[in-house]
Order: sequence, then structure tokens, then C-alpha cells
Amino acid sequence: MSGFETRLRVRWAEVDAQGIVFNGHYLAYFDVGITEYWRAIGLPYPAGLAGTGGDLFAVKTLINYHGPARYDDLLDIAVRVERIGNSSIVFELGIRRGDERLISGEVVYVFADPATRRSRRVPELLREAVERFEAAGARR
Amino acid sequence: MSGFETRLRVRWAEVDAQGIVFNGHYLAYFDVGITEYWRAIGLPYPAGLAGTGGDLFAVKTLINYHGPARYDDLLDIAVRVERIGNSSIVFELGIRRGDERLISGEVVYVFADPATRRSRRVPELLREAVERFEAAGARR
Amino acid sequence: MSGFETRLRVRWAEVDAQGIVFNGHYLAYFDVGITEYWRAIGLPYPAGLAGTGGDLFAVKTLINYHGPARYDDLLDIAVRVERIGNSSIVFELGIRRGDERLISGEVVYVFADPATRRSRRVPELLREAVERFEAAGARR
Amino acid sequence: MSGFETRLRVRWAEVDAQGIVFNGHYLAYFDVGITEYWRAIGLPYPAGLAGTGGDLFAVKTLINYHGPARYDDLLDIAVRVERIGNSSIVFELGIRRGDERLISGEVVYVFADPATRRSRRVPELLREAVERFEAAGARR
Repeated sequence: MSGFETRLRVRWAEVDAQGIVFNGHYLAYFDVGITEYWRAIGLPYPAGLAGTGGDLFAVKTLINYHGPARYDDLLDIAVRVERIGNSSIVFELGIRRGDERLISGEVVYVFADPATRRSRRVPELLREAVERFEAAGARR
Repeated sequence: MSGFETRLRVRWAEVDAQGIVFNGHYLAYFDVGITEYWRAIGLPYPAGLAGTGGDLFAVKTLINYHGPARYDDLLDIAVRVERIGNSSIVFELGIRRGDERLISGEVVYVFADPATRRSRRVPELLREAVERFEAAGARR
Repeated sequence: MSGFETRLRVRWAEVDAQGIVFNGHYLAYFDVGITEYWRAIGLPYPAGLAGTGGDLFAVKTLINYHGPARYDDLLDIAVRVERIGNSSIVFELGIRRGDERLISGEVVYVFADPATRRSRRVPELLREAVERFEAAGARR
Repeated sequence: MSGFETRLRVRWAEVDAQGIVFNGHYLAYFDVGITEYWRAIGLPYPAGLAGTGGDLFAVKTLINYHGPARYDDLLDIAVRVERIGNSSIVFELGIRRGDERLISGEVVYVFADPATRRSRRVPELLREAVERFEAAGARR
């Protein structure tokens, strides 16, 4: 487990009439976490994919809601790559407020040709950068 | 299967720099579909829950992305209740553009006390309205 | 005044913890109105600009909030072009719920080269389509 | 001028198919800036208004777009209170990327009774906290 985390604060516009964050915004939070993950491993999106001829497209997202986040909460978003397949990358994500787990989930991307949408093998450079980062995290 | 559907048009603000709808917006689309489902069965949210002392909270959302929606697309959102448990309601959703399936997914709600967040039995009035509606759809 | 209007329904995700639509969403509503305006005059965006070599960029938006919209409200969005300058187009917008005025505002676009961002003269085809549409509305 | 600023990073979900931040999101950015302003003056919203019997409602927002923000940009949001009237508070806002001015604008709130929406005099505690903060900024 890489142990990678990033932090954000819940905005007023993200909270609904129940006083809690609307479910769809957690996918934007996941995306913020994944953006920072790419930066942390040295392949900031999208520049890190330049020259690969491919791009990443979400094919599955899963969210489990254990407890609600509220306005102005400081949230810690934990991100790790759980698995890299031939053309897919599986991210595992968690959101906590302090010690309390609020959200767990998964985002699966496929590496594909942007024009044809046909899947392609995840480039070695990306594969190696992820594996090195996750291995370093496991030793921490 | 109820065969219930509602339609919406993709907005400019929902499309990202890849030219496709950002993944989080599909949960807002699901929510539009579920809103119209409650209205269709005669229990518009939240008035339809008045007097029950409970509210619905999402505990799980799952989205599978089969193909991307684009700006100005007309999307058909199919909604059915797949199952009602003791305190949970499982919605199955699909999004199509014409004959092309773009999205399939699931939203699971728990009926709970808004103050304590403790789950409660789904009220009979809600249970019956859903079952009647789904059964009528199955005969269509 | 063209008298052009389009209708939308407030979504759950657009309502904040005060129980009213968050102010930023009205700009998305304005955008929906302007999208439908372009379609109504026969120049759907962005296809209607194909071959002009330019694109429209917002340079000013103004919103006056007379009253709040709430979840599930049906809103009528009135759109007219108030003025076309050399390179600018000034939209005047209003949002009503039934007879009640909720929002009035303005969106100013500049027609410009997408690469250099330098402003250019609004193409005649666009100018004429707008003037014809507004004149027809004035006679209605 | 208080010189108060806060920083945020543009998210993927906020960028549209033109590759630039959709105009409505700047109102969410303004709101983030104003949230941090209230915190900075010692009256975090909404707790800082507790006991006043009133709340703040936007009555006008104005945005001027000088240049576009893009994905992953770090933006500095400058916030100051330009004027406090009997029942109104006028915020002046600016957004920069480094030395480049991208956005300038205004948000006007009215302090009002949440139930009746009738405007009320801005409480002294709020008035004084703002004036002290702005005066200290002017001396910086």
C-alpha cells in the first residue's frame, strides 16, 4: 500500500439539502486524489502520457458510503493502485475525516486509443512508475 | 422490469476536456431518474416520505461505462427497483443514447432515521407503491 | 424581445444546505437557455459556427437574485440577444417559476480566434440569424 | 484592502470541452474565497452567525473574464469587503494565476431573516470584525 494521501476541504456548493455532500461529488474528490497520485509518481496527467498515443478512460466506479461528509470538513483521500492488468488500472480509494472512515471505493481505467477507443497495453513507463511507487510505500 | 424511463440532454458544463461527460455527473443523472421514478409511482420525493419519520441515504453506487456521452446528446435513463430489503432499496439504472447503451449501474439506499442514522424498516406504503408499479411494468 | 424560452427542472444536486439553488448553478441554467436559443435560430452550437474560424468566449456574466429556486421547481428561462456589437454578443436572461421572477442577468460573449484569443468581427450569418429571430419575436 | 488571499487548484471536472474552466465554477471559487475570509476574521460560516437570527443570501454576482484558467492551474483568490451597507455586504474578488489576472468580480449579500427573507441590519459583531480586518490589511 502506497499510503499516498491528499487533503481537501468540502465546499458549500457540494453539500445538498440534507446537509451532506451529494454522492456524485465523491467522484470529483476521487479524481483530485488520482490527479495528485499521478503527480506524486512523476507522471502528472496528461503530460505524463505524452508520446504514448493513448489516454485513460474510466470504465467502472464504485463508491461505498459509510458516513456523510459535511460542509467545511477536511477530508483525507487515500489512493493506491490495487492492480495493473494488460490494459487496465484499478485504483482503490478511501476518504476519511480524521480517524473516521467515510467512503471507500474503486475506479477502474482502461488505457485506450482516444480516436478508436480500442484498448491498448498500459505503457511500461507508467507500469514501472506505479510499481516503484507502490513498492516504496509498502516499505514505509 | 418497470420499463420506466426519463430523458435529459447533456449540458456543456457536464462535458470535460476529453469532450465527454465527466464520470461524476452520471450520479446526478441517476438522481434525476430516481426523482422521476418517485413522482411516477405517486410518492414524489421528499413529500412522499412525509410522516414516515425516515429518509433515504445512498450507501452504495456503482457505474459501468460502456461508451461516452457527449455534449447535447439526448439520453434516456431507465430506472427500476431491483429489490427492496428490510431497510434497503436497490435501484438498477441504465443510460442509452438511442439504441446504444452507454451506462449501467446501481444505487442502493438505506431508509434511516435522519438524526441517528440508524436504519429502519422501509415503510409499507413505499414498499407497496414500488411493487405495484414494477408489477404493472412487467405486464406492459 | 424574442420571447424565446426553455424549461428545466431543478435537480437535487443543485440545491445547497440552505435548501435553495447554489448561485453558480444559474450560470449553467443560463448556458442551457443559450444552447436552446442557438438551436432555435438554426445555428446549433458548436456546429453552427463551423467554417467561421472563431468561437464564443464569455467575458462578463451578471446575475441578480430576486428570489430563490428550490428543489424540483420547474423554471422558465427566457433568452434574448440584447445587442450585437462588432465582436460581442450581449444576452439578456431571466428565470421565472410560474409568474414569479427569480433571476435576471446578462451574459456577454466575444467572438474570437480560439488559438490567439484575439477578437474578430461576429460573422454575418450569425448576425443575420439573430436579427431575423429577434425581429420575428418582436412581431409575435 | 485586506490583501486576503486563498489558493486552490483547478479540477478536471471543472474544465469544459474548450479546455478552460466553465464560467459557473468561478462562483464556487468565489465562495471558497469568502468561506476562508470568514474564517480569517474569526467568524467561520455558519457558526459565526449563530445567535444573530439571520443568514446571508446572495443578491448579485458579477464576473469579468480577462483570461481563462486551465486544468491543474494554481489560482490565487483575493477577497476583500468593499462596503457594508445597512443590510448588505459587498465583496470584491479577483483571481490570478501567478501575476496574470484572470477574473475580477463582485458578490453582494443581504443579511436577512431565513424564514421571511426580509432584510435586517448587519449585526455589529460582523461589521466590526470586517472593519478591523480590512483596516489591519490596509496598514500591512
